[in-house]
Amino acid sequence: MARKKKYNAFYAQSGGVTAVINASACGVIETARAHKDKIGKVYAGRNGIIGALTEELIDTSKESKKDIAALKYTPSGAFGSCRYKLKSLEQNRAEYERLIEVFKAHDIRYFFYNGGGDSADTCLKVSQLSEQMDYPIQAIHIPKTVDNDLPFTDNCPGFGSVAKYIGVSIREAGFDVASMAKTSTKVFVMEVMGRHAGWIAAAGGLAAENEGDAPHIILFPEIAFNKEKFLKRVDRCVKKYGYCAIVVSEGAQYKDGTFLADAGSTDAFGHKQLGGVAPVVAQMVKDELGHKYHWAVADYLQRAARHIASATDVDQAYAVGKAAVEYALKGKNAVMVTIDRKKTKSYGWKIGEAPLEQVANVEKMMPRNFITRDGFHITEACRDYLLPLIKGESYPPFKNGLPQYVTLKNKAVDKKLKKKFTV
Amino acid sequence: MARKKKYNAFYAQSGGVTAVINASACGVIETARAHKDKIGKVYAGRNGIIGALTEELIDTSKESKKDIAALKYTPSGAFGSCRYKLKSLEQNRAEYERLIEVFKAHDIRYFFYNGGGDSADTCLKVSQLSEQMDYPIQAIHIPKTVDNDLPFTDNCPGFGSVAKYIGVSIREAGFDVASMAKTSTKVFVMEVMGRHAGWIAAAGGLAAENEGDAPHIILFPEIAFNKEKFLKRVDRCVKKYGYCAIVVSEGAQYKDGTFLADAGSTDAFGHKQLGGVAPVVAQMVKDELGHKYHWAVADYLQRAARHIASATDVDQAYAVGKAAVEYALKGKNAVMVTIDRKKTKSYGWKIGEAPLEQVANVEKMMPRNFITRDGFHITEACRDYLLPLIKGESYPPFKNGLPQYVTLKNKAVDKKLKKKFTV
Repeated sequence: MARKKKYNAFYAQSGGVTAVINASACGVIETARAHKDKIGKVYAGRNGIIGALTEELIDTSKESKKDIAALKYTPSGAFGSCRYKLKSLEQNRAEYERLIEVFKAHDIRYFFYNGGGDSADTCLKVSQLSEQMDYPIQAIHIPKTVDNDLPFTDNCPGFGSVAKYIGVSIREAGFDVASMAKTSTKVFVMEVMGRHAGWIAAAGGLAAENEGDAPHIILFPEIAFNKEKFLKRVDRCVKKYGYCAIVVSEGAQYKDGTFLADAGSTDAFGHKQLGGVAPVVAQMVKDELGHKYHWAVADYLQRAARHIASATDVDQAYAVGKAAVEYALKGKNAVMVTIDRKKTKSYGWKIGEAPLEQVANVEKMMPRNFITRDGFHITEACRDYLLPLIKGESYPPFKNGLPQYVTLKNKAVDKKLKKKFTV
Repeated sequence: MARKKKYNAFYAQSGGVTAVINASACGVIETARAHKDKIGKVYAGRNGIIGALTEELIDTSKESKKDIAALKYTPSGAFGSCRYKLKSLEQNRAEYERLIEVFKAHDIRYFFYNGGGDSADTCLKVSQLSEQMDYPIQAIHIPKTVDNDLPFTDNCPGFGSVAKYIGVSIREAGFDVASMAKTSTKVFVMEVMGRHAGWIAAAGGLAAENEGDAPHIILFPEIAFNKEKFLKRVDRCVKKYGYCAIVVSEGAQYKDGTFLADAGSTDAFGHKQLGGVAPVVAQMVKDELGHKYHWAVADYLQRAARHIASATDVDQAYAVGKAAVEYALKGKNAVMVTIDRKKTKSYGWKIGEAPLEQVANVEKMMPRNFITRDGFHITEACRDYLLPLIKGESYPPFKNGLPQYVTLKNKAVDKKLKKKFTV
């Protein structure tokens, strides 16, 4: 019997990186390496899908076992990611054809795309076009997004670790402010990511386990901001607890859709206010209630904070990468790997799948019943959903007081195509 | 032989709190409890020294052994702190006299004051006045400040943990930006505390272990900001490494002493710009070089981050609290406990002391040879000094994904004085 031919795999990271996207890469590469009889090399795209378009492939087989294992605890995108959305097939068929040309040239028949909604869409189109072009490619989407907004999957790898970071941070800052409030700072405002959905802001709510705990107020993008109601709540909170800790989503907005962050001042040159939404909210409190404030904008710190990653998140990120390879070996195509919550009393999860046709371009928003009626906090239902996702600590190794993250060699694969492609 | 009378102790937390000031409180209380034959109760000031002035004392003997032990891993000030500087003896002798009256009423002869430069000064004056008033009080100052600016002590408890947080954070954010730089963010600016001295900003420099590592640029308060030179450096960095990560001290300033943070815009109402220095620096880069940027302001998150505290810092914070009680029992007075670096090749430290007369109102600045000649980074000498201070991880216990910090009962001691005192 003739030995079945082995094909290579292509893996790329897409969009904003997370504390655990490299754990998914680790899952993909380690699992592929465990099936050397069926999968040849895993090539990674340098800077994501751009690397495929420009034929800048990275040969992951040049990396040591130890370095690949270290991806499991290294934040960011080890091969580079990109914010580059492929246009529709109608608008730019050439891009998709180029992808397939590159895959063909490098004997790639497995396409693992690790990203959010846009990359699910790209993944689907590559699969569709490969059929049309009679070059079979199995395209598997590996979910990743701190925004937690992909459908079908119970949650998205990357989110649990941001959620944990935000919960930990607002708890710690809350303790700080509580000790200072008598003579100093009475109001603390922490800005978090999530322009379209309040999942990350909601995670801050987990820190409030008992009456009076921080955060006292959460401002969600889903709830139209009402200045008067907000200030009344802050005032009540300061009177009752001595201080007020607020988590505000960068996407917090007025009823008419104007972002609070955009409602600030312009400078002498007409530039829009430089700050985010936290200073806007803090200043509002100062102007109307006169309290001394502090504010923080965690920005990238929150999504890069591998040092305080959720062990559940790390495990799931690895598992979706591993499952993607296993699905490919089972012949699956045009699917997204999902995390399915078991219907048990205590939290459990297993790997599942969803057809990409149904995934692409659908955003999962926070259910209204996850936000309290008054719009300022999370409900028990939300807490039940979120809590398991931040469980467990998964500390990276430290040396000299700092986490030891890996930087890969990222050796280039020789180009085979004569034609250059500019993105 | 008549049994020697036991006296009570008073402990107060002063100024901005830290991730480890409660570890010092733990050292004081546990050590006092171990000497019940000599020390009666430890009363804590509710909201710092204000609690002594208003006779709002907390009876720490009502707290369980377990809860006191939990202080070792709980950030913030468990009894409340305050920003309240006692005036000079000449200006407000009444305040000092009141302190001594309260101490007298509660049979307090040990005064442990846990704070920075201002509290060292207060501590000294209480000691001096107690002699004049013929009511002997032993006043011991326990150092605490994230600013690391107290003299005589090699370093200040609280600083090492902020330093570690900043080093970890800029490393993680650096990895993030490096993966995104091809198509998105090329410049990241992180603002850190330290209005007068660049110690905290310098700590960020520890993350840059190898050529090209983040941070690439540090803006110190000690080095006059030169916009042209700075932008040239950013440009070079982006060209060479693809991105540029910057740590900026909130105290960064122009040659004339104007803070960069104050040089921003005003809004329609004439309010000064709401943001900190990070957005100002980021916008400068955008305007002149056109790079996409992100910025973060860690604010209280940095000094409250007990989850990533330095084990060295925790140990030292506990040790200075413990030593304060032991010094008091040895009859010492008007001294500050210090941390003395051993003159050995590998880092070692021991507890020492410095007379408060020499400590009060002296600020320890960063030596110029800790900053590179070009003013944008730290030297090897600085690295040698800082590195041991962030060593070791001292994780708090977690439950349900979040750190479990203690909130004490903080039961009030019955007042004994009829006269009220308003601060």
